[in-house]
Amino acid sequence: MTKIFRVNMADQSVTEEEAPSKWALLGGRGFTSRVIMDEITPGCHPLGPNNKLVMAPGIVTGSAAATSGRVSVGAKSPLTGGTKESNAGTPVSQMLGRLRIKGVIFENQPANGGWWLLQIGKDGAELLPADDLAGKSTSEVNETLFERYGNRIGVVCIGSTGENLMSMAGVCFNDTEGRASRFAARGGLGAVMGSKGLKAIVVDATGAPGVEVKNRDVFRAGERKMLSALQTHDVTKPGGALNTLGTEVLINVMNEAGGLPTRNFRSGSFEDANNLSGETLADIIRERGGMGKSTHACSPGCVIECSNIYPRADGSEFVSVMEYESVWALGANLGVNDMDEVAEMIRLCNEFGLDTIEAGVTLGVAMEAGIAQFGDGPAAIALLYDIDEATPTGRILGNGATFTGKAFGVTRVPTVKGQGMPAYEPRVVKGLGVTYATSPQGADHTAGYSNAQEILGVGGKVDPSAVEGKADLSRTMQAATAFIDAHGYCLFTAFAMLDISSGMEGMVETVNGILGTDWTVDDVGRVGMEILESEREFNAAAGFTKADDRLPEFMTYEPLPPLNEVNNIPDAVMDSVFGE
Amino acid sequence: MTKIFRVNMADQSVTEEEAPSKWALLGGRGFTSRVIMDEITPGCHPLGPNNKLVMAPGIVTGSAAATSGRVSVGAKSPLTGGTKESNAGTPVSQMLGRLRIKGVIFENQPANGGWWLLQIGKDGAELLPADDLAGKSTSEVNETLFERYGNRIGVVCIGSTGENLMSMAGVCFNDTEGRASRFAARGGLGAVMGSKGLKAIVVDATGAPGVEVKNRDVFRAGERKMLSALQTHDVTKPGGALNTLGTEVLINVMNEAGGLPTRNFRSGSFEDANNLSGETLADIIRERGGMGKSTHACSPGCVIECSNIYPRADGSEFVSVMEYESVWALGANLGVNDMDEVAEMIRLCNEFGLDTIEAGVTLGVAMEAGIAQFGDGPAAIALLYDIDEATPTGRILGNGATFTGKAFGVTRVPTVKGQGMPAYEPRVVKGLGVTYATSPQGADHTAGYSNAQEILGVGGKVDPSAVEGKADLSRTMQAATAFIDAHGYCLFTAFAMLDISSGMEGMVETVNGILGTDWTVDDVGRVGMEILESEREFNAAAGFTKADDRLPEFMTYEPLPPLNEVNNIPDAVMDSVFGE
Repeated sequence: MTKIFRVNMADQSVTEEEAPSKWALLGGRGFTSRVIMDEITPGCHPLGPNNKLVMAPGIVTGSAAATSGRVSVGAKSPLTGGTKESNAGTPVSQMLGRLRIKGVIFENQPANGGWWLLQIGKDGAELLPADDLAGKSTSEVNETLFERYGNRIGVVCIGSTGENLMSMAGVCFNDTEGRASRFAARGGLGAVMGSKGLKAIVVDATGAPGVEVKNRDVFRAGERKMLSALQTHDVTKPGGALNTLGTEVLINVMNEAGGLPTRNFRSGSFEDANNLSGETLADIIRERGGMGKSTHACSPGCVIECSNIYPRADGSEFVSVMEYESVWALGANLGVNDMDEVAEMIRLCNEFGLDTIEAGVTLGVAMEAGIAQFGDGPAAIALLYDIDEATPTGRILGNGATFTGKAFGVTRVPTVKGQGMPAYEPRVVKGLGVTYATSPQGADHTAGYSNAQEILGVGGKVDPSAVEGKADLSRTMQAATAFIDAHGYCLFTAFAMLDISSGMEGMVETVNGILGTDWTVDDVGRVGMEILESEREFNAAAGFTKADDRLPEFMTYEPLPPLNEVNNIPDAVMDSVFGE
Repeated sequence: MTKIFRVNMADQSVTEEEAPSKWALLGGRGFTSRVIMDEITPGCHPLGPNNKLVMAPGIVTGSAAATSGRVSVGAKSPLTGGTKESNAGTPVSQMLGRLRIKGVIFENQPANGGWWLLQIGKDGAELLPADDLAGKSTSEVNETLFERYGNRIGVVCIGSTGENLMSMAGVCFNDTEGRASRFAARGGLGAVMGSKGLKAIVVDATGAPGVEVKNRDVFRAGERKMLSALQTHDVTKPGGALNTLGTEVLINVMNEAGGLPTRNFRSGSFEDANNLSGETLADIIRERGGMGKSTHACSPGCVIECSNIYPRADGSEFVSVMEYESVWALGANLGVNDMDEVAEMIRLCNEFGLDTIEAGVTLGVAMEAGIAQFGDGPAAIALLYDIDEATPTGRILGNGATFTGKAFGVTRVPTVKGQGMPAYEPRVVKGLGVTYATSPQGADHTAGYSNAQEILGVGGKVDPSAVEGKADLSRTMQAATAFIDAHGYCLFTAFAMLDISSGMEGMVETVNGILGTDWTVDDVGRVGMEILESEREFNAAAGFTKADDRLPEFMTYEPLPPLNEVNNIPDAVMDSVFGE
């Protein structure tokens, strides 16, 4: 059996309950999205007492299954006003799984304020005063808590922006070496955590019973099939694209496809893209040596190891992780072409507890408004300090791209449902545009990554510029993603699963092994769609309609160079993704 | 026949067309709301090229009918994201009516930027460059244009906040003496005007043919009945409440009822209310003498004359108008108890082109966030200058209360559909709360003023604290208001019309006289409801649902002293106002 902790921030009491049977098969995003629908008043203020913060490891997380170290965080989003799930790869996820914790639900707000730390271990959970942690950056929190509790713990925390209730604040988790570098970044969940007076969580899985496996043979067989697929596929195998260049491999790919959003989505190619590319990144890491690493795992048991550690010129550690999304957002999207300037921005986002995508999209909008010039890295860095310090400018930027656009009267704002678009131009990669528009999560590439088929040729090859078939493609990918997010697998396992059918079978078998179900690959879409439906149900009750399932208006009338594409997906196609 | 000017800001061309027969019976709000529904893409960006700004005098406006000098302005609102109509009492309305202009529709945006002036006269309309007017305050624009064109013109303009595309910017019209003091204030229509590069409009009705009256006898008979009612009723008659104390008569009334929102809606009574009361205002005006006037008409032919001119201590002119809403918003709602400090704030709002209600509600939220202390008038004045100067703080505040609440993470934000609440606490005056929640316009007391029945005992006496019957009351008042707004009558005529049936008959007869219709009083609700339906249809297409027809969450769990009432109107009652 798994258990649920309910943490009542109003009186700092914690209760432990057996997970009810209705939630028996739910984990990760499946669990967080269901709790949001079942327990949160849709009309509540995201930062008020009636919102809840939910944290849940995936179903297989903590088991021996490869690359399954994800933990989901959910709440009503202060950024979108709708349902929100964001997940991170971190050892913390596995500790929660091994402790057989289905989820932790934070409720209410401290009656008398203050900051709090939740301590979780095999004997229960307890809230402790944590005013001493207030004002600390994420790395300072990690340093303090690892020193206090030893190296076996996991740490979850927020930075200044979460404390300051900003809608671009994420929730920070440590990586395999204790860095404050892994984020459930999107949708302002750090602000929800801040609104509950919760500065940090410490997890200690010492003496944990481990993940309960109902059918060990089925699990093991599945695990092996999956592992074989991951180690075979060109994208995920050792020495493959993600292992050697990380997600940064995409800079040159997307630039060549004309789909790398540049200078606030004014162009689909960046003349200095190569300065920021994965190839250049690998070169720098190799040349500088020292602490640099091009291959790094965010959580134990990952066989892809797409993370990295970026060194300074003197070889000392600069920042982890130089992800494609982050480098794009704070690089090409701002017209900034200097890898070190981008690294510094990513480092600051980590320290302040910021979503790098929302930060970059927001700074792009601010540059559109003339607050700084495109290409001016030092000015962008200064604006990040504004956010940290919560100056009036920081209060604007810290609340995201939609907010910043409104502050300055900007009409070119690349967001959906209030959330900034990731590093794929939807006028070019039209299936992903359908996902941006229709995902209950707002603009999110991880919600249904049809870029795989449209640009990378994984899982089939689809013309990115075609309209036909994109609703079906997006729906299929959104459902498969929800399945993956629920069970704790990293989305990157999907590259192998899409092309190698035994791998996908293996994934389902690991789930069957743990849950005692007898699902087949045919159940993946059904299970995923049930999650999406719970999310859409919440959004509808919160006031979302099909008018929210749209790309920004300017993309319909502004052609994007160099391909000069506009968004020509008819509204009816958007509406057909989930039907009425 | 009436005509429509279409002003294409993209190429500065103006076309004149005969009003189509489908719009023959529509004027004022009836016209603006219909054009919004028929011609504006619901999903468009409010400040982008696909929004339109519509201006229309009421059906009887420009005729001899008493107190009918209203002009409506409409667009998709940058404040609410929905339909918006806001109207003002001004001689400009009557000039447009006498020129037989059904409406002026501004489309697109200047291809090469710049600021423009539209000149309207009997021979047509023309756009002229107006870069010389940019940056000028409303009174400076009026001064410049009256000097340039002489005293027979009317002037419409925006201040700095409209130029800066801020969502609390209104559209300014001159009063009977040329002051820049009459506003179509609500919903950010000044920002839409600014987004079109339109700084001002000059209207000259010299040689105008006058309002066409289809049946002069019917019109004259109606006009006389209405006039008699207005001159008989205690609220509207010469020497009556509005004539002697203006709208400011309500400060003491609402305070005694426990429904005067104080310090950002933390209390329903203000200990220093009497400092700000209509009685005190009249005393000050009398004592200071000079330019002061307690009785003043906003437009020719008004028999109520509820406006005023507030003098400085030396008798020179300080500001017009000290309205109840404005004095409350910038006084009691901020805990400011000094009439001169409030007058200075109102003066600045006029100069900068701000909605006084949104400004006051926003400053209340800012004080809630600790940006200034409640009661600190000089600090509030300084924040208004921030808005004028578009400092980062001003960019936050200038976009309204909802925006400011989000910037600072405040959950106590008294808005509906993004629009700040006026001077009646909805937890106490529950019928008006239903109007706030359900009006397609957002929180708006003028959208269905059931305070008449609930507190003032006009049009019947209804218990303000009762829930039962409030949906019906709100619906009836919303429909009657839409009728009044469409025909150009001042809403204050309603006090007399509600109690004196011959007055209401007379109003309908004036409309019949002009339009050639044969409506009866029974048609008032139907005509009004058709307007409301066109507004709700646009809102639904723009993404509004019943989740938007709600009062703020905090009012459901926070009792309001001294009566300790919460909002206890069930959602089903809100939804029953307009049904499914």
